[in-house]
Amino acid sequence: MTDLRGKTIAGTFFHAPHPGSIEILADALITLDARGDIADVSRWPDAGHAEKRKAAEDAGTLVTMPAGTYVLPGFVDLHIHAPQYPQLGKALNVPLEVWLHRYTFPLEARYADIAFARHHYDMLVGDLIANGTTTALYFATVHQEATRLLVDICIEKGQRALVGKVAMDDPEQCPDYYRDASSEAGIADTRALIDYVAAHPENHGLVHPVITPRFVPSCTDPLLEGLGALAQECGCHVQTHCSESDWAHGYVLSRFGKTDTETLDGFGLLTRRTVLAHSNFLTEDDMDRVAARGAGVAHCPLSNAYFANSVFPLRAALAKGVRVGLGTDISGGPSASMIEAQRMAIAASRMLETGVDPDIAQEKRGRPGSRIDFDLAFHLATAAGGDALDLPVGQFKPGYHFDAILVDPSAPGSTLRVSEELDTDEDVLQKIVYTASRANLTQVWIAGRSVSGGTA
Amino acid sequence: MTDLRGKTIAGTFFHAPHPGSIEILADALITLDARGDIADVSRWPDAGHAEKRKAAEDAGTLVTMPAGTYVLPGFVDLHIHAPQYPQLGKALNVPLEVWLHRYTFPLEARYADIAFARHHYDMLVGDLIANGTTTALYFATVHQEATRLLVDICIEKGQRALVGKVAMDDPEQCPDYYRDASSEAGIADTRALIDYVAAHPENHGLVHPVITPRFVPSCTDPLLEGLGALAQECGCHVQTHCSESDWAHGYVLSRFGKTDTETLDGFGLLTRRTVLAHSNFLTEDDMDRVAARGAGVAHCPLSNAYFANSVFPLRAALAKGVRVGLGTDISGGPSASMIEAQRMAIAASRMLETGVDPDIAQEKRGRPGSRIDFDLAFHLATAAGGDALDLPVGQFKPGYHFDAILVDPSAPGSTLRVSEELDTDEDVLQKIVYTASRANLTQVWIAGRSVSGGTA
Ligand SMILES: [Zn+2]
Ligand SMILES: [Zn+2]
Repeated sequence: MTDLRGKTIAGTFFHAPHPGSIEILADALITLDARGDIADVSRWPDAGHAEKRKAAEDAGTLVTMPAGTYVLPGFVDLHIHAPQYPQLGKALNVPLEVWLHRYTFPLEARYADIAFARHHYDMLVGDLIANGTTTALYFATVHQEATRLLVDICIEKGQRALVGKVAMDDPEQCPDYYRDASSEAGIADTRALIDYVAAHPENHGLVHPVITPRFVPSCTDPLLEGLGALAQECGCHVQTHCSESDWAHGYVLSRFGKTDTETLDGFGLLTRRTVLAHSNFLTEDDMDRVAARGAGVAHCPLSNAYFANSVFPLRAALAKGVRVGLGTDISGGPSASMIEAQRMAIAASRMLETGVDPDIAQEKRGRPGSRIDFDLAFHLATAAGGDALDLPVGQFKPGYHFDAILVDPSAPGSTLRVSEELDTDEDVLQKIVYTASRANLTQVWIAGRSVSGGTA
Repeated sequence: MTDLRGKTIAGTFFHAPHPGSIEILADALITLDARGDIADVSRWPDAGHAEKRKAAEDAGTLVTMPAGTYVLPGFVDLHIHAPQYPQLGKALNVPLEVWLHRYTFPLEARYADIAFARHHYDMLVGDLIANGTTTALYFATVHQEATRLLVDICIEKGQRALVGKVAMDDPEQCPDYYRDASSEAGIADTRALIDYVAAHPENHGLVHPVITPRFVPSCTDPLLEGLGALAQECGCHVQTHCSESDWAHGYVLSRFGKTDTETLDGFGLLTRRTVLAHSNFLTEDDMDRVAARGAGVAHCPLSNAYFANSVFPLRAALAKGVRVGLGTDISGGPSASMIEAQRMAIAASRMLETGVDPDIAQEKRGRPGSRIDFDLAFHLATAAGGDALDLPVGQFKPGYHFDAILVDPSAPGSTLRVSEELDTDEDVLQKIVYTASRANLTQVWIAGRSVSGGTA
């Protein structure tokens, strides 16, 4: 499919600019500028709609999507451990200590080998693009060189990305073979990565650097302090894990006498450009604080089932004004698909609402008012993710980047069955959220450029 | 790929004959007889292994699976509402009453139209085969003609299936436009379907009839009595829903003063060939009774998140000796994939174990000892499903039907990434359970015959 920059696209577009509502732009026109940003959105019977179509047709810039296909905003994945992709879907049957020390840390340590890094990062970025992830927030590894390579690969493949060199220096929590040599080294390497991204000649704003303390338990006070100062100085994005599990939440409480959220805030790490992974055990005060700072939360429902001892109280956080998006948490979550993350966000919310143990009386089993539906899940995976990152993506609105996917129910290998007779457009979107798969995403665009996924 | 009847297959086979253990048959040979049943399984260094290979080679009957592929037993789906396939992934955002009366019953009623039935049943059976479901236990509709058609389509496409005409006659719970005309009609039509399947000239034991009272609330006492008598008379399979939700469980308690399980048993409907869908609210006594009768349970974890107000206490049921397999519960569960059912069974078991509400103290939040891992989920989806149906499927053992799928990590559109360097065979199976998708299932065999899935 053609490059769409400078073109006018005719098709049916689905997006969800606001929580809990979807907008169906049937037979609409979206015009892109030369940079791939949306210049105009129009639909019948908007004034001048027919004229716009005619003008684009005459100019030879009209591109019509195939009949029976749908254009959606690309997905914004707020939490990915890039180096863990080779272990996606394995080692989930072992205790956390084994998962960390026999699998995860040794695997991440291997990215000191740049050929290893290239092979696996190439595959990851290609597969995520094929899965419709047009914006990715990555934890890389502690390594400077491999993290730069991940930046290069995202730029080369055209994926919008935010990339962080992981900072972790506490010898009590991090293995000798895999940590920053010192807090100074962790800070200096973070700065070096920021400089590398800023100076990258091919970047043009596609990739952003991220200050990335792994989580409070793996960082010394001086490292947290230094990274907080850097965040204040550069205004960069920040990402870390926050109050994920009983253990992590309790560890920070006992080390600092205050919560993860308060601790991060005290170090200057809770900013409008911060994304906190998980955050299942936020207190009400924590939620107020996160909302006040404008920080975002990466809700990772699939990973939560394995590592968080609970379901993130999404409705409570939204009610407090916290900006929440979705993440896969590769490889704590065993899926590289943001469609699957949406499904699990819905299912987990139902399970929180009704409770899970049939031996408990119904009225005491669950947490009423917790459920979400496909429309909110889709909003979280697109518009809300863009909002949490302060990036103009995830909506079809003038001024936004045209990052989008084409969904084709009749693609070979389709798992999405649409009936013209039985399904409304809204039904189709619900079916996409619940049943579409990689095979149905036949095109992916980032900033109007057609980008292609992994081989095979 | 060729028909494997009468052939010797060389490849790597994974199966899980027993709960919680997997068996890897690397570089093994499986020999089929002319009917497609397994005559011999051998692996190096079994006595005579090399000679068997040589003999098959010399006879020209050796078929070698492509390098890097894996052969698994096909999946046994213990709970499918065949007519609901057109609404897979929709209407999950509405209350149960609306789901039933605005969507589900009107949709099922449309199968009075045989052209409608043909179109949608064709697509369903094709898609299930493509998803690796080699044995399917179907609820059809109340209609005789459309249910016969579903039998025909399974036979034509070569899918092993158990098909039930749904019986439902209570005017208080069933709509006027969609129910059996009387209890006598429900019984007579059930018997007519049994006769049809038995007399089908092309059947050869591939398809079995199933006595199918929808669930106790939709059936009058005379209907339940008549179907119970029929079950005792013919020894057929029986399927129904049992103690699925607070409402359903409570309804039966208040109508009969005893549980669903006791009620079904009283009507003669709890037999060694009975499959009870869901069963989330079984009491300890119920579990003992189900185990004593040798009945099976179709655990449907995805659907449970939407309709069952709880997670099925799988570990408790297994400890009681209940025979449990897995079901998709199309369309209460929004997926037609038994791989996705396995994933959700694992995730749901974790959520039952840890609990879901972070505001509850850790020690009171969950139900310890509830978790399962990929090996048990895979066992449930294959060997245990076959066992629950008393059919010799789901294992690679002499005397079993060769119902199998070929998993190819390098297939176009693959979502399964295997590394020869990093992954053991056991890792590969775990990765298949967590990350494989339709694209990876490149071949499906039922009784040694290559069967092909849906178009596209
Ligand atoms: Zn993480
Ligand atoms: Zn059902």
